[in-house]
Amino acid sequence: VEKLIVLGSGSALPTTTRNPSAQLIKSNSYYYLIDCGEGTQLRLRDLKIPFNRITHIFISHLHGDHIYGLPGLISTFSLLGRTNDLKIFGPKGIKEFIQTAFKLSESYLAFPYQIIEFEDQYNDLHLIGETKHDTFQIFSLNHRIKCYGYLIKEKAKPRKLIKEALEEYNIPLAYRNVIKQGADFQASNGEIIPNKLLTLPPKSAISYAYCSDNRIKEEQLLFLKGSKYLYHEATFEHELLDIAKKTMHSTAYEAGILANKLNVNTLLIGHYSGRYTKVDFLLNEAKQNFKNTIAVKDKQVIEF
Amino acid sequence: VEKLIVLGSGSALPTTTRNPSAQLIKSNSYYYLIDCGEGTQLRLRDLKIPFNRITHIFISHLHGDHIYGLPGLISTFSLLGRTNDLKIFGPKGIKEFIQTAFKLSESYLAFPYQIIEFEDQYNDLHLIGETKHDTFQIFSLNHRIKCYGYLIKEKAKPRKLIKEALEEYNIPLAYRNVIKQGADFQASNGEIIPNKLLTLPPKSAISYAYCSDNRIKEEQLLFLKGSKYLYHEATFEHELLDIAKKTMHSTAYEAGILANKLNVNTLLIGHYSGRYTKVDFLLNEAKQNFKNTIAVKDKQVIEF
Repeated sequence: VEKLIVLGSGSALPTTTRNPSAQLIKSNSYYYLIDCGEGTQLRLRDLKIPFNRITHIFISHLHGDHIYGLPGLISTFSLLGRTNDLKIFGPKGIKEFIQTAFKLSESYLAFPYQIIEFEDQYNDLHLIGETKHDTFQIFSLNHRIKCYGYLIKEKAKPRKLIKEALEEYNIPLAYRNVIKQGADFQASNGEIIPNKLLTLPPKSAISYAYCSDNRIKEEQLLFLKGSKYLYHEATFEHELLDIAKKTMHSTAYEAGILANKLNVNTLLIGHYSGRYTKVDFLLNEAKQNFKNTIAVKDKQVIEF
Repeated sequence: VEKLIVLGSGSALPTTTRNPSAQLIKSNSYYYLIDCGEGTQLRLRDLKIPFNRITHIFISHLHGDHIYGLPGLISTFSLLGRTNDLKIFGPKGIKEFIQTAFKLSESYLAFPYQIIEFEDQYNDLHLIGETKHDTFQIFSLNHRIKCYGYLIKEKAKPRKLIKEALEEYNIPLAYRNVIKQGADFQASNGEIIPNKLLTLPPKSAISYAYCSDNRIKEEQLLFLKGSKYLYHEATFEHELLDIAKKTMHSTAYEAGILANKLNVNTLLIGHYSGRYTKVDFLLNEAKQNFKNTIAVKDKQVIEF
């Protein structure tokens, strides 16, 4: 995964500067869409994202600000003549939501798609799919209705060959792939060349955890420890903790504590309440507990 | 009714300059919304329309580009604490569409609303409601799925009193209202003062007919004869008549013919295919048959 493109950083009440929740992860010239609030297709078009490169859609939960852009988007896929497969993941009910819209309009999708629904509680990471390059895992969040987070993780990358060493030890071409995977090399004279002389450690695999919407609780999400990027909602400032608790959301301050506890590399916050015009002070609140925090904005691109 | 505000002039494929169908009619400081494509609530917010002044929503049909903004909009009404009544009119199925969205999100609308559904064929105007100032009539259109047009019409206005004449004939205050309604005045000496000496004709009542989506056919919509404003879809140029027929849409050229036949005052065209960046030539096509045509644009305000 190479970058995150923020399509919408708002919450239930959209503003003229913030669309409701939607994010795009670019991976090897394909895109994964996470949540799809109203207006997502226009945002995608605005950013010139090639629609048929979107192969997976991950829906966190069935609140409108996370799904009301979905029927329009996939209907547009169809009108544009899409032929490639689409996988949509989400809580039980997402199929009914989509199919009701298409049934009532007496239309259908002219491309192959699968809707994969979840209804279990996942207190640990649960593998739901993979591509050649990435794995997708789901986990339960703590919200008013059934809500899931997603962990998108690059598969372990091969070790990097040291060209000079391969030449020095006369390693045949055919062995290079197993050496990339970490194998030692046994020469014809029986001598063993340890892998560490032949390779360098691989580029570390990127992992991106998406947590929205979620009321942070004790001992939650520990399985995300050490993730590179953690996106966590920060709907409210900490002074509104009572409202956060009541609506099952979190404060920026709490998101910072969580990021610190999980020892991630970077915390991204978003899903800001419509009451905030500026979010600098939410950023500062999170930073009190976790310095490397980014308060995401609509249309922002974050290179991993 | 005082003005039309165009919220979206596009069709199924939204573009960055044209939202899908939505229009707003302002009447005596209230608003009637006609169709509600995706992004309508943001457009309303952008134009600073007070949400709780929207009292009626009229939905033409259940294709996505006319309804995908509806769940988000009314959910926002609720979140903003609306208390006043909302009436939603539309074809059978609109209730299921709305209620499925709210059922799945386990949310509900915290204000009073009614959904009035239609499933009959109306080959003539059919009264569906009124306010103090306006009447609402529905009629059937000719499209791929059940589709209705709406005629919003001001009630007949009272005649205008001629101040000087009232004084000259010593008309008591108590009689003024019946005279406004057209009555003659009988003086105490038996003399009858005809109404036409006391009043001027009222300002003519505005009528606005909304026809989208519709494949124009022979002898159609004759009951709209003499309407002041006719909005009719003009999805295609006339060279694409075959596609228009196949998809049950109309061309700009045909819309002009219709306006001419119905002898309206002004024709408004819209619902342009996503293939068109500029619509000047659609306007010119319509004008070949009906000179007083306006090709509407997003955010355009047309004072009646």
